[in-house]
Amino acid sequence: MRTITIKPAAITHNLNQVKKLAPTSKVLAMVKANAYGHGVAAVLPALQQADGVGVATLIEALEARKLGWDKTIGLIEGAFTVNEWQQAIEHDISCVIHHAPQLTWALAHIPPINSATRVVWLKYNTGMNRLGFNEQTLIPAAKLLHHAGYQLILTTHFANADNHSHPLNAIQIQRFNDMLSTLRETINCDVKGSLCNSAGIVNFSKHHHDWVRPGIMLYGSAPVIDQSACELNLQPAMEFSAQIIALQTVNAGDTIGYGSRWLAQQDTKTALVSIGYGDGYPRIIGDDVYVSVIDTINHKSYPCAVIGRVAMDMIVIDVSNVPEGIALNSKVILWGDTPHVDEVAAHAGTISYELLCRLSLRPQRLQG
Amino acid sequence: MRTITIKPAAITHNLNQVKKLAPTSKVLAMVKANAYGHGVAAVLPALQQADGVGVATLIEALEARKLGWDKTIGLIEGAFTVNEWQQAIEHDISCVIHHAPQLTWALAHIPPINSATRVVWLKYNTGMNRLGFNEQTLIPAAKLLHHAGYQLILTTHFANADNHSHPLNAIQIQRFNDMLSTLRETINCDVKGSLCNSAGIVNFSKHHHDWVRPGIMLYGSAPVIDQSACELNLQPAMEFSAQIIALQTVNAGDTIGYGSRWLAQQDTKTALVSIGYGDGYPRIIGDDVYVSVIDTINHKSYPCAVIGRVAMDMIVIDVSNVPEGIALNSKVILWGDTPHVDEVAAHAGTISYELLCRLSLRPQRLQG
Repeated sequence: MRTITIKPAAITHNLNQVKKLAPTSKVLAMVKANAYGHGVAAVLPALQQADGVGVATLIEALEARKLGWDKTIGLIEGAFTVNEWQQAIEHDISCVIHHAPQLTWALAHIPPINSATRVVWLKYNTGMNRLGFNEQTLIPAAKLLHHAGYQLILTTHFANADNHSHPLNAIQIQRFNDMLSTLRETINCDVKGSLCNSAGIVNFSKHHHDWVRPGIMLYGSAPVIDQSACELNLQPAMEFSAQIIALQTVNAGDTIGYGSRWLAQQDTKTALVSIGYGDGYPRIIGDDVYVSVIDTINHKSYPCAVIGRVAMDMIVIDVSNVPEGIALNSKVILWGDTPHVDEVAAHAGTISYELLCRLSLRPQRLQG
Repeated sequence: MRTITIKPAAITHNLNQVKKLAPTSKVLAMVKANAYGHGVAAVLPALQQADGVGVATLIEALEARKLGWDKTIGLIEGAFTVNEWQQAIEHDISCVIHHAPQLTWALAHIPPINSATRVVWLKYNTGMNRLGFNEQTLIPAAKLLHHAGYQLILTTHFANADNHSHPLNAIQIQRFNDMLSTLRETINCDVKGSLCNSAGIVNFSKHHHDWVRPGIMLYGSAPVIDQSACELNLQPAMEFSAQIIALQTVNAGDTIGYGSRWLAQQDTKTALVSIGYGDGYPRIIGDDVYVSVIDTINHKSYPCAVIGRVAMDMIVIDVSNVPEGIALNSKVILWGDTPHVDEVAAHAGTISYELLCRLSLRPQRLQG
């Protein structure tokens, strides 16, 4: 079976790692994009010790509410329309406000005094240049919101926090800290701050402020370029697996799969595995990637190279090192404990985030 | 809204193109991998003129039956277990038999005389080297199946049919035709043949045999390297779109997004679009890819470059060429009529099949 197995205990463990790194900050656990592909329903129960969850769309926010999440929900791109703003009020969603139309909606439709929507995450563009107010427009926006009765969390987003030594980090931190001081001095001493995503949590421990916003590290991947998930004591929360459905021996000189890319240098025992890019295993994977075959009898793990091009529904692997007679029907781990999804992503020229998110509907979802 | 709009009329049109190219063959329309990401429920009604549909897993086969498909369903990797074989009989599924265990199950559990499972697609490995019997093992398998009362369709799969001049094509065709002749002479003159996928349908019109198996061309993408979808009179069946949710001007010298990859050479009007790799838009997309912005007033289309790295939930585009005041909330077409998904795939270093299949749950599904 094509299977995605989610491990809630790993997510709880990873959340505890966040809390150890940022012990005085509240935690907005990111569950956008269906909890980075893990499935929000499977993930929320593992996040009970978080102070809130972060989502990218109103639909995702409403789904989290429907699933019983009764604490903070932060809508990190805010409402897309005035109607969405009104729905946010109705369901007690805290919104980012990052541009003038959202400010207008907030001033025209003020939530009830005890509504969670009274807390707004005011987005400051410190150098990512995607969204947010600039230095000139942010202060007037903050004043208007404060006078209308909103509580403010100043927030921004790093462009290069994964790389500790990138020069933009110091600039973004300085701009953010300066603006937070200004707002506290000129508007209200109780303005809160939120600067750090996972990479910031790891790399910039002096700048955690009131709320941290971990995402990828909750799911067990490394958020920084110079420390592995293992070194950070993070556990992978997903195992992506399939099974061997046929065995063959290809002869020296034979080629395998589309484009005849892989050429057998010698007679080679191969196995067909029921997984492909139609499930979300990336087509770009080359012959330098391995999967783990778990034999059906001893449950021993064998690393086996992917050979030939990944197709929509199947891949071929080299099972020369797997003992005769125990390979058929064996479980094949595409990513999980080993190989780690970070390793597979590096070979696929991307980051684990994308592999986790771009899984299709086809694999069966389980909890482990 | 993040939206995937499926156009059943385009699929029916494309099926008609298949029928024009292969007028004397039956058509097994491939709907595996959730109909190449289009959604099998949306696609089946558009395929009423096909003779059967092809799927990769028993779950997909049962879904097609549940949706009311009462003609042939071909399970193209066959049953994975004896239990699956028995379920195939129960639901009248025609299976590929590609290795000895499947042969054993078929001989041990013979379907009723009028069952569609009596028709087996006997897989011959002619050079793809993924699955199938070889020259020595196929004939005895065919004899056993014939004597047990099965009707046979000899089938194989091209490795390089997209490239007309690849030398393996002629070898595969020759091996297939020779084996089909042998089976017809030695077993039964009524053994059928099925050789061609979409690329084979286009490139090898003399070898269509009894069943053709179109996949990608049904969805409007080009199956061959030297003719475009337009040249083949195929219509894209999917429009993948989002909307502009904010506008900004970035200053000359500013960088955009993760890794600060894109540097503004001059002051640039940018727009934030609510789409990312969390929806299935590939992260690898570079600055040479455009999207179409459809303005909210005149519905005119403007090509706009993607600038900066694709993130999980958003991208930034250059809207310098879109008239002031009409960009916010505009629809943005990631792929559809223009750009065609084949163009986007080429820029992403992959094929349209993968982009279509690797869409996530998040976008809303509509029919157009």
